[in-house]
Amino acid sequence: MPRTRLRDLTEGELLEQLFPRFGGITGPAAVPLGPGDDAAVLAAPSGSVVLTTDSMVRGRDWRDDWSSAREVGLKVVAQNIADIAAMGAVPTGLLVALAADPETEVAWALELAEGIAQAAGEAGAPVLGGDLSSAASGTVVVAITATGDLEGRPPVCRDGARPGDVVAVRGGLGRSGGGLQLLLAGRGRTHLDGEPGGSEQAAHDLCLVHRTAGSPPWREGPAAARAGATSMIDVSDGLVRDLGRVARASGVRVELDGQALRVQADGPLTRALGADEALVQVLSGGEEHSLVATFAPADVPAGWQVLGSCAAGEPAVLVDGTAPEVIGWDHFRG
Amino acid sequence: MPRTRLRDLTEGELLEQLFPRFGGITGPAAVPLGPGDDAAVLAAPSGSVVLTTDSMVRGRDWRDDWSSAREVGLKVVAQNIADIAAMGAVPTGLLVALAADPETEVAWALELAEGIAQAAGEAGAPVLGGDLSSAASGTVVVAITATGDLEGRPPVCRDGARPGDVVAVRGGLGRSGGGLQLLLAGRGRTHLDGEPGGSEQAAHDLCLVHRTAGSPPWREGPAAARAGATSMIDVSDGLVRDLGRVARASGVRVELDGQALRVQADGPLTRALGADEALVQVLSGGEEHSLVATFAPADVPAGWQVLGSCAAGEPAVLVDGTAPEVIGWDHFRG
Repeated sequence: MPRTRLRDLTEGELLEQLFPRFGGITGPAAVPLGPGDDAAVLAAPSGSVVLTTDSMVRGRDWRDDWSSAREVGLKVVAQNIADIAAMGAVPTGLLVALAADPETEVAWALELAEGIAQAAGEAGAPVLGGDLSSAASGTVVVAITATGDLEGRPPVCRDGARPGDVVAVRGGLGRSGGGLQLLLAGRGRTHLDGEPGGSEQAAHDLCLVHRTAGSPPWREGPAAARAGATSMIDVSDGLVRDLGRVARASGVRVELDGQALRVQADGPLTRALGADEALVQVLSGGEEHSLVATFAPADVPAGWQVLGSCAAGEPAVLVDGTAPEVIGWDHFRG
Repeated sequence: MPRTRLRDLTEGELLEQLFPRFGGITGPAAVPLGPGDDAAVLAAPSGSVVLTTDSMVRGRDWRDDWSSAREVGLKVVAQNIADIAAMGAVPTGLLVALAADPETEVAWALELAEGIAQAAGEAGAPVLGGDLSSAASGTVVVAITATGDLEGRPPVCRDGARPGDVVAVRGGLGRSGGGLQLLLAGRGRTHLDGEPGGSEQAAHDLCLVHRTAGSPPWREGPAAARAGATSMIDVSDGLVRDLGRVARASGVRVELDGQALRVQADGPLTRALGADEALVQVLSGGEEHSLVATFAPADVPAGWQVLGSCAAGEPAVLVDGTAPEVIGWDHFRG
């Protein structure tokens, strides 16, 4: 009888298939003891470790009819790595907790592992440990913890923005949110079938970013820290919502420039969504995992796009002087 | 309208209620940056960090009619801290990922947090970060990552047992497994209603260990490392199954002494279960989270009970020279 579901394997048999998929990943921190014992040991070269955790839940954070297991693995790692990068840290490791319906296909779980391993390999973050749990019918939850190293620098927090700093982004805006809107409207493109550069290719590309989180520019996080970033955050819940966190933590008013935002909305986003919805997604689209940071005007590194600046005043995020009517994502209220 | 379910609150409102419950916990490692930013920063005093992750799933790892939210919180932390201790490390921090049905009672989530905080406080492991996700109807998954510090020692792994070492346990055996059997048989006692020292009190105590994991003797893990433990593991899946892991990793035959095991089965376990089932639970009961370690005969610390010894030979676990007919727990096959 073919053994195609998790319930057909012992935990040990499944681990025997999973472990090799996580092999061979190396990063900036030594791993004196990898997975397989009660716990792993990770070197902390600069005397501290950066830690974050982020999860994905089937049916909430992905739909099986939209996303492959590999894409789920890529995305859940990207989300965590982006949080490490947003502190100015380099990724050093991952832990993976999977709670899954025993009816889950073994092939799905192995492909998830391959997606996790691919993203972990690109980030230099070896898989240090994991946990397998059975869950109720239909349930799959993937919880990742990521570690990072600050290379001796202080962390870049949300509370360091100062009046006079400029606000800049590294990576796209609104692409993942735009892809989600297209998928929800039944206009998602999982295969590239249109002319290059046309609206169908644009739609395909946005949906791909939604399914995989693209490739968050994580190397630019530590680079921004070295350049003197005063605050940084990754765009998880939407630009306005996430910059609102920076504004409140730093006690500054963030003034965004409408023209700079329209430049972000131009191109594929507008081709796929139209100009108005493209701008809404630039302001409110979540799960983008680009980096947004503040710098003294002379410190903005090459490759970052300036979106506005910080001023003294009540904490708020304004676009051309007005509070935008968009909000972002809330987990329990949707 | 009373706001009693998670769906009635924004994520921010829930976090505002959760954060204070995690406040004020300090441990051996400094926390230069606690929760609230993209990631936390934890000091790694000895230049490395020990990491493990372990989850609990509603309906699989606990039943709401048996366990309170506080007990779930105590147990999920105990499981993780025991893994840190089994490496010979002291706990230094926790991260908590909660995926929950939006219909979950806010009071339940807050009580879970209080249980987590209580166990974290006892272990000196501040809560460094977390993640909230919504999940399908009925689903609650709590995934914890724990960190530890080796105080400059090498980790105590499963592969260090040598022929001639003795095998010893610190903490109970079979209590959690016995409690589970009682609960499954409808003989669980959640309230203490019998005479002190009688079978009803014994049943109550076993069920309490099952629901909370008791108080794993985590301080004895680093103490055993200091005393020269050659291998160590915590009893997660049953004594024979977990010692089998030590036997295979170390390449030794573990020879347990039936009389020493019967001593473990005596007392409350036998009063609640009868002598035969008590011995089965000593050998196979999981989720005990006691520590089992091997030592040179002269190195066994006070308070550890010797159960047998290691010999050269094919990896196996024998009781009075015979392979016992018990196995332990497997997550997907139950």
